[in-house]
Amino acid sequence: MGANDIFGVPGDYNLQFLDHITHRQDLKWTGNANELNASYMADGYAREKGFAAFVTTFGVGELSAINGLAGSIAEHVPVLEIVGAPTNNVQNNGSLVHHTFGDHKFDRFEKAHRQLGIKSARLDGEHAIDQINDVAQYIYETKKPAYIILPTNLVEMEVNKSLKDSIPNLFFNKEMNSENSFEQIKSSINNIENPVIVMGHEVDRFNVFNDIKSFSSNNNIPVLDLGLGKGNIDESFSNFVGTYNGQISDESVNKYVANADTVVLIGAKLTDSVTGGFTQQFNEQNTIVLNYENANIYGKSVDKDYNFKTIMTYLSKTKLDLSLPSIKNADNVSEIKPSNNKLTQSFYDKAISQFTSADNTIVAEQGTSFFGLASQKLPKGAKFFGQPLWGSIGYAFPAALGNQIANKNRRIVLSTGEGSLQLTIQELGLAFREKLNPVMFVIDNSGYTVERVIHGMNEPYNDVPNLNYKLMPKAFGAKEDEYDFIEASTENELFDAIFKAKEEKDKLVLIQVNMEMKDVPEQLAKTAKAFADQNK
Amino acid sequence: MGANDIFGVPGDYNLQFLDHITHRQDLKWTGNANELNASYMADGYAREKGFAAFVTTFGVGELSAINGLAGSIAEHVPVLEIVGAPTNNVQNNGSLVHHTFGDHKFDRFEKAHRQLGIKSARLDGEHAIDQINDVAQYIYETKKPAYIILPTNLVEMEVNKSLKDSIPNLFFNKEMNSENSFEQIKSSINNIENPVIVMGHEVDRFNVFNDIKSFSSNNNIPVLDLGLGKGNIDESFSNFVGTYNGQISDESVNKYVANADTVVLIGAKLTDSVTGGFTQQFNEQNTIVLNYENANIYGKSVDKDYNFKTIMTYLSKTKLDLSLPSIKNADNVSEIKPSNNKLTQSFYDKAISQFTSADNTIVAEQGTSFFGLASQKLPKGAKFFGQPLWGSIGYAFPAALGNQIANKNRRIVLSTGEGSLQLTIQELGLAFREKLNPVMFVIDNSGYTVERVIHGMNEPYNDVPNLNYKLMPKAFGAKEDEYDFIEASTENELFDAIFKAKEEKDKLVLIQVNMEMKDVPEQLAKTAKAFADQNK
Repeated sequence: MGANDIFGVPGDYNLQFLDHITHRQDLKWTGNANELNASYMADGYAREKGFAAFVTTFGVGELSAINGLAGSIAEHVPVLEIVGAPTNNVQNNGSLVHHTFGDHKFDRFEKAHRQLGIKSARLDGEHAIDQINDVAQYIYETKKPAYIILPTNLVEMEVNKSLKDSIPNLFFNKEMNSENSFEQIKSSINNIENPVIVMGHEVDRFNVFNDIKSFSSNNNIPVLDLGLGKGNIDESFSNFVGTYNGQISDESVNKYVANADTVVLIGAKLTDSVTGGFTQQFNEQNTIVLNYENANIYGKSVDKDYNFKTIMTYLSKTKLDLSLPSIKNADNVSEIKPSNNKLTQSFYDKAISQFTSADNTIVAEQGTSFFGLASQKLPKGAKFFGQPLWGSIGYAFPAALGNQIANKNRRIVLSTGEGSLQLTIQELGLAFREKLNPVMFVIDNSGYTVERVIHGMNEPYNDVPNLNYKLMPKAFGAKEDEYDFIEASTENELFDAIFKAKEEKDKLVLIQVNMEMKDVPEQLAKTAKAFADQNK
Repeated sequence: MGANDIFGVPGDYNLQFLDHITHRQDLKWTGNANELNASYMADGYAREKGFAAFVTTFGVGELSAINGLAGSIAEHVPVLEIVGAPTNNVQNNGSLVHHTFGDHKFDRFEKAHRQLGIKSARLDGEHAIDQINDVAQYIYETKKPAYIILPTNLVEMEVNKSLKDSIPNLFFNKEMNSENSFEQIKSSINNIENPVIVMGHEVDRFNVFNDIKSFSSNNNIPVLDLGLGKGNIDESFSNFVGTYNGQISDESVNKYVANADTVVLIGAKLTDSVTGGFTQQFNEQNTIVLNYENANIYGKSVDKDYNFKTIMTYLSKTKLDLSLPSIKNADNVSEIKPSNNKLTQSFYDKAISQFTSADNTIVAEQGTSFFGLASQKLPKGAKFFGQPLWGSIGYAFPAALGNQIANKNRRIVLSTGEGSLQLTIQELGLAFREKLNPVMFVIDNSGYTVERVIHGMNEPYNDVPNLNYKLMPKAFGAKEDEYDFIEASTENELFDAIFKAKEEKDKLVLIQVNMEMKDVPEQLAKTAKAFADQNK
């Protein structure tokens, strides 16, 4: 299915299965420091490769990872978890084995996963192959996570049926059955007058950006994405005008949405974190929604048998009877020059943006990093992701490492904070063992600044322990020549650090960026106010 | 309910609530590095204090912690999780807020918890106080974990009803209604001839050891506990003859069970990890089971309205018509002397045991540590715990810190391995911030030795990265005078390290113990074989 690496943690119900990974030439086992980190790493890997898998053990392992898998559901990332389980006999006998509650019940954890809407298969000897094919088809078709429970007795079982040699492109096999829904959408598209396109995360997941690009090019329609939508999207496309974040977007971005009669919203969710707290300047009445699972035309649902991919193909070929002016989207990012001034969040965001190159993937933690960097426009080739809907702190670091493993030809640039990094920092051990070379910016702003601006600016619950990042690489096993540590407190120091990191291509470069506790990106300050109001 | 400290991680749906912790004089907020660690720490705290609470945020926080809470269910530890949630309005409107799947559903996570059998209450404005009282009563009565979902809008709500001033001792209020069940049990107890008592974890949780002690003393009945049963039990009691681990126990322990006609099994679960893989030498037909929730006499269930506490009180006063010889339980632990030989697991276990003092609580990780130390007899006052049923690796370190916070007059001795410690190591930051002084033995045996002996002795999936423990304290914020790091590779070095740790009472002492990869306690070697057979 496209993964050459499998993540996870060994446990006594999955060891036999792991043999079948480590004994193969075409698969690499990459053991994690814990299961939550494994699930985050798989998610980051899948965002580059289109699929990822990780292995846990029964009960303790799968529950440790469930938050990561939940993030993959929320943000629509195709990840497969394989849970090693006690034998079918042990389960059927209800034995009091470890990694259970000692209550004879072996279906509790699967049931918990099902409450989260996770597709699952508890393999049995008779149907295991069909069950596996069914899960593979589900992931391939929906791009959503799934989960297989693999009892140890099945690992060595001989089977007389084959897994499908290659997964067919099921996505395209799903026909659109209703002429009606297609006609409804065609007609509404053909009648738009002054549209703008806003793209969400499904555009990346289902790989339909090129269709949208054609549609936009053929008709001079401005295109924007959302923070939950940046990914493998080419933001250098001439009709791309910026990342929309509701009314708090930059005026240069805002005007396109404000001036449009119709918003064509594709594969998107208008969540609070990517709309400046629900401040989008459009509503159902002037929006055509085209999502993978549903469509809605100016407030009216389209028939259920609607097919997303067919519509995208249709759009790609459509020349409307419009005569919109061509978009003068001058690449107006003015270069910044550093001084000896103390570093600010605003300068930092611009500097990261200015030095982003085609082979970089920016991974931004859902704190000051994401809110500052999501609105920066990416050069051709550059990629970006965060986790703005699920927003689990600590996610970005393992996800960045997973993304780096998925494509060693890219240089991953992580931007996180010292509050977030501590949650998952033990994967530094893996980073050095696997000789990974990300650039890690760790913003030290004395605690959870993203929380401070929502509530409790000076409260002790927003403090974190003072860790010594300089010592971390060696503590987690780095040799002297495998890393660099740089501290930056001024604009000049940040520039120097970036230049050095670019030179040190083969090293993990950890850059501690010191900022004021209360310094936040403007868009975060505004979003935080909306969040605080939401909590009343 | 007995907790002065509250653990957890701030998040934007719990910040307002945290104000009401930090602004009180009688509560201390202890922020964790991540939510799973918070849940482990609360579990370790509750094992000393009888109750603990921790706070998480909606979705991401509660799912990160769910494995810890599951451990508290499995091992019967009274922990309350309070989850900060979006306002009732936001939930009722189905808004697309962060920390959800953006699918308008706000009950997914509670439903997942319910599948694990976790008591939950989703507070609403009208019934919040009754709901809280109900949860408090549940925890007090059952000693099981529970979970409250607290929407932010309720935090500042004025109420005209009171939380109960003091939680009544509900346990004693629960009357035994059935004369019948009482008579059944009385009669079976009065007819035993050559009994032995085997105690499980409920003896500790429900604080009934003194009742059992009286019963044993009055009748000269030998008493044993299980690995899932060691805790705040006085193993120096003259009739206590050892920790039973099925047929693989030491012969000096085994003989008591082997010679008995009847095993009185109190508050216990005979799980694989504490019976040498189901090798106990008794069965239903010669066992009287007296558990909190059920009783069973020689294979026949007792009526449901049976009351555990009443039976324990009855036992404490019972003098049977037996004339068993008094138990000659000579404290036959022979002192070991160190040499310059390389350290072995067997020597290590005896050394830890020899130097355990009355104010020590031994916390043993579920690897070589637990299997080696659980069979060692504790001196008067000393306590011990591990997590043999749930067996979640990484648990012991945060649990040890929580236990230390619960009672600063005790010195916590953690025994873990480098494979396990990496899962939760970031709480070193908390340990130094809170100026905790545990002695931490970290066995470096080149990976997951407990897994190696089950399967895959030389397989790479049982390797872990080589971390540098010497640098860890400073990397996690320790000042020079706040810790000591000692490495021990020989018997003499281990003795020296122990002496030094005993002197350095106010420091966190981290002792790296180097052992051979394949060196395991004898009882683990035997259990591992049983586990491997179980997996076929």
